[in-house]
Amino acid sequence: MSILFCSDSEDPAPWRDAIAQALPGMPFRVWPDAGALEDVRYALAWRPQPGALARLPNLRAVLVLGAGVDSVLSDPALPLDLPVLRLVDAGLVEPMAAYALLAVLYFQRRAGAYLRQQAHAVWQPREQLPPARWPVGVMGLGTIGRVVAQRLAANGFPVRGWSRTPKHLDGIETFAGRERLAAFLAQSRVVVSVLPLTAQTAGILDATAFAAMPEGSYLVNIGRGDHVVDGDLLAALDSGRLAGAMLDVFREEPLPAAHPFWRHPRVVVTPHVAAPTVAADAQAQVVENIRRLERGEPPTGLVDRSRGY
Amino acid sequence: MSILFCSDSEDPAPWRDAIAQALPGMPFRVWPDAGALEDVRYALAWRPQPGALARLPNLRAVLVLGAGVDSVLSDPALPLDLPVLRLVDAGLVEPMAAYALLAVLYFQRRAGAYLRQQAHAVWQPREQLPPARWPVGVMGLGTIGRVVAQRLAANGFPVRGWSRTPKHLDGIETFAGRERLAAFLAQSRVVVSVLPLTAQTAGILDATAFAAMPEGSYLVNIGRGDHVVDGDLLAALDSGRLAGAMLDVFREEPLPAAHPFWRHPRVVVTPHVAAPTVAADAQAQVVENIRRLERGEPPTGLVDRSRGY
Repeated sequence: MSILFCSDSEDPAPWRDAIAQALPGMPFRVWPDAGALEDVRYALAWRPQPGALARLPNLRAVLVLGAGVDSVLSDPALPLDLPVLRLVDAGLVEPMAAYALLAVLYFQRRAGAYLRQQAHAVWQPREQLPPARWPVGVMGLGTIGRVVAQRLAANGFPVRGWSRTPKHLDGIETFAGRERLAAFLAQSRVVVSVLPLTAQTAGILDATAFAAMPEGSYLVNIGRGDHVVDGDLLAALDSGRLAGAMLDVFREEPLPAAHPFWRHPRVVVTPHVAAPTVAADAQAQVVENIRRLERGEPPTGLVDRSRGY
Repeated sequence: MSILFCSDSEDPAPWRDAIAQALPGMPFRVWPDAGALEDVRYALAWRPQPGALARLPNLRAVLVLGAGVDSVLSDPALPLDLPVLRLVDAGLVEPMAAYALLAVLYFQRRAGAYLRQQAHAVWQPREQLPPARWPVGVMGLGTIGRVVAQRLAANGFPVRGWSRTPKHLDGIETFAGRERLAAFLAQSRVVVSVLPLTAQTAGILDATAFAAMPEGSYLVNIGRGDHVVDGDLLAALDSGRLAGAMLDVFREEPLPAAHPFWRHPRVVVTPHVAAPTVAADAQAQVVENIRRLERGEPPTGLVDRSRGY
């Protein structure tokens, strides 16, 4: 029996150490040096090679090293009955809420305009609306979205929320379903997306969505890059429909050097840092889940594969 | 009897309208077209010409059009017994707290580093400490400083406060007096100054202060430009002692185009917008104070001229 680490982008070393300390005697291998495939009982995966997990006949569970599981579920070869576990919080929520707040304040306080002015030594105060006149719409109202919404509201911004299925949040008006999306967007001076990536949400931030947003509004994307139709966003920025965007996630990461987002004067690019996984929390969660599975207890973070999160 | 508007930088028109509506029959004049000097009973002042107020023999009070009164008190000709009234809050506090939070998040989340990277299409996540390991020091614990401190604490930052005289704030460690300044600074990863400008605080942010701050720390100045010794700040930035500064106030405003702050890669310049005076609130306060003085009642915002605020 062994644990197999399946990721080309993540460093296996800290995970090897954590497993060796917490589960001594459990062999730790790193794909493609998997040893005997039939020995692998657990896979720790982040963007695994498509098809790799399907080659492990005795795999009991995939433990995804993040909150988003789209890079695992998108593998068409993934056995349908294989349990997929995701990280729950693991220190992800607080940094996401703080990133969203920073982005909203950045736009509301005209920071981008002042940085552009500074490049030319221009002293020019800009009109600035108070938070009370700066409604923010949060797309996605799960564990992360709820905290994002509450954090923004606590800092004086009127907040509305949208999700696929109806949700209730104290003090926050919520909209549900695709048919209410335009009404939600029309009232949002900034839209913050923390949606999970599913077949229903891929490409949801497209020309139709941007056309529904108020003239001169802003987009903050800390969900997944595939939510955004890049060309539609660029067109909306160039037409003035959108006044700016702060983007942390992209269809291809690292964002290719030739991508126009890098050079667009109204786009801020950050390198997928809204929620750096806090290693110690994440490792403790993965170890605890392996222990639970070994004891036959229910694990945390079991993904509903029909929903996709 | 008349009201005289004394400012070269502010627009008198909205004040004329507000006074005409609230105090009909009270002549409103704009310096230097003051009419008969002995008729002037109240002066509305923002950076008045030095010596101007001393020429008004029957002046009952100076109503300063902001929270900071240094530009009025610095006039050596100002009669010693003339009451000086400042705006109290008038919507100043909330924007100051939000600006401080934006600045602290900007530095803690490495926004400046990511903007510099973006200019070269560089995708490179940076080390980022959580708010719990990012202590912020607030200098000045009056009406504004208290709210700034509480807002930062509510967003997860450990906050300490410094003031000239001892103050108590729930949940916030406070330091008082010049002899405790170095100990306060040594524990602050970001120092946010909202101090009033007095003889005791002018030049307080100098080489000695920066040397007491931790290596790689940050400065946010939303007090007054004269608190900072500009050359000392530039030297501290260039030596790496300070990692960055966000400055909203300057010794000379507008900041001269040749000033090195404009071009320094680790300085963010904003054009004195941390607390745009909310015109309607400010006008209501000034009108109410004139009414109180006319009725012989105590006004709000009376400045203790021995303290300077």
